[in-house]
Amino acid sequence: VIIHKTQLYEDKPDVILTSYILEDSPSFLNGGRRPAVIVCPGGAYLYCGEREGEPVALRFAAMGYHAFLLRYSTYARSRADAMFLPADPPVNPDSVYPAPMRDIGKAFLLLHENARRWLIDTDRIAVCGFSAGGHNCAMYAVNWDKPVISQYFGQPPEKFRPAAAILGYPITDYHLQLAAKLDEAGKALFQLANIAYFGTKTPTREQLDLASPYRHISKSTPPVFLWATSADELVPVQQTAQMAAELAWAGVPFEVHIFEGGRHAMSLADQASASSRTQVDDKVAKWVDLAAAWLKTRFALPLPE
Amino acid sequence: VIIHKTQLYEDKPDVILTSYILEDSPSFLNGGRRPAVIVCPGGAYLYCGEREGEPVALRFAAMGYHAFLLRYSTYARSRADAMFLPADPPVNPDSVYPAPMRDIGKAFLLLHENARRWLIDTDRIAVCGFSAGGHNCAMYAVNWDKPVISQYFGQPPEKFRPAAAILGYPITDYHLQLAAKLDEAGKALFQLANIAYFGTKTPTREQLDLASPYRHISKSTPPVFLWATSADELVPVQQTAQMAAELAWAGVPFEVHIFEGGRHAMSLADQASASSRTQVDDKVAKWVDLAAAWLKTRFALPLPE
Repeated sequence: VIIHKTQLYEDKPDVILTSYILEDSPSFLNGGRRPAVIVCPGGAYLYCGEREGEPVALRFAAMGYHAFLLRYSTYARSRADAMFLPADPPVNPDSVYPAPMRDIGKAFLLLHENARRWLIDTDRIAVCGFSAGGHNCAMYAVNWDKPVISQYFGQPPEKFRPAAAILGYPITDYHLQLAAKLDEAGKALFQLANIAYFGTKTPTREQLDLASPYRHISKSTPPVFLWATSADELVPVQQTAQMAAELAWAGVPFEVHIFEGGRHAMSLADQASASSRTQVDDKVAKWVDLAAAWLKTRFALPLPE
Repeated sequence: VIIHKTQLYEDKPDVILTSYILEDSPSFLNGGRRPAVIVCPGGAYLYCGEREGEPVALRFAAMGYHAFLLRYSTYARSRADAMFLPADPPVNPDSVYPAPMRDIGKAFLLLHENARRWLIDTDRIAVCGFSAGGHNCAMYAVNWDKPVISQYFGQPPEKFRPAAAILGYPITDYHLQLAAKLDEAGKALFQLANIAYFGTKTPTREQLDLASPYRHISKSTPPVFLWATSADELVPVQQTAQMAAELAWAGVPFEVHIFEGGRHAMSLADQASASSRTQVDDKVAKWVDLAAAWLKTRFALPLPE
């Protein structure tokens, strides 16, 4: 695997795409192109978390897909920086909608530009996000063919088409999210998250509608794999259930796995993505195999007999 | 395993509980009591299907639980009989609500009566149903402590308490079900199913409300494991998504697995429950292992160190 980091914009040193490109040889695909997965970690639009980053990208690389870790626009540079923010910090225009979603579009353009060199099958690029990163991927999945992406970049929508979206404990309904009964830490987190993503502590109804991807599902929404835990106390699981129902109404193929146990942000739920034992759960960890099986129905490598 | 059949009512020769009792010995639990699972097959309240019967009961027996197959009250005696019904047959009062749900209550009483002899842990009896059988189990799960069960039998509610419910592609919202766009065969089936369960082709709004278990979830609803397939063309999967959301609102522990592929009535989705290859699907078959892992968190056998 060849790893390199690309800064997506000259003036944004923190928006970085880390590529995990699988090297080809006659022992593998012999010039054939591989599908790719772009991973978006969570972090409440305040930072991009480590636990949902490289360990996840490596997992997709281990499945035989090129993997890309996208550190999209967030309020602060790191989790450490985000933890020392005052309660009411100034707006950072770089992290406000639609910047984080457009970063995914920018990553798609980079993959298309380098498709021949990296042997990427650009018809099969998936996005995979967690929590706020799941929200960002869900927003992208319902907006990739809208002017907010393609017109902004002046490129045809085909260059932005995701072939699948894998969403872990995502925010999909900002109305439900902001009405949720959270503890004090959760409330404080979302006050900051609102400043990061909406540029205000008190987003308007219109802002919340726009940022609720379940409302914008259409025939151009790619197939979706959703997973979450019913015990999630930060992002209520009703959002995942509602998103599933809306995908069904729209006729978009989908799969959903809601595990009973497990707190918010389980990531892979195994030791590779954990900083404590509460982040390890054998039952929740099954989502990875389920997602791999689901993805393989669309992303099977082009192997000869 | 000791298998025997019990006719639950003298005057109803078709309502039969088949018991698969695991024999104890010092090599096993040495007098310890085992949890039990009562299985309710589907069949649109017209019959109890074979594919969701014994193969499922054997699977739970193979997990170490006593298993019971309940042939609850249905319109016809068999699938073969149901297939030759006229379009508008007379009402069979035996299969009309709440008879099928009460049959589960009757089975609970039988398990409690024989608990010592069969070494059943009566605090840990689960119900597991599919399609109409999933509806029947869901109805039971939200009604077991209501007068419609306990007052009818003149027994305290404790004797009817289910410890868990496992529901496969269940009907949980009869309004959604009867509004679904079905093909001609599906429409004809539900016309008969309505006569079987409601005693009329055109149930009232009140009847549909009463028969929609998602509306009656409460704190006394046991933990629920739901599974379905998004490609189900007979029982739209929105019902499962909605049930999940309502369980979350009520704070009832639950787990949900919606697989993308697979038609209605996959049962175990393996060769043990199939009459054709379309009823076999390795991905869908994972529900059994997921359900076993979920059940084990509550139903672990009382093994010494």
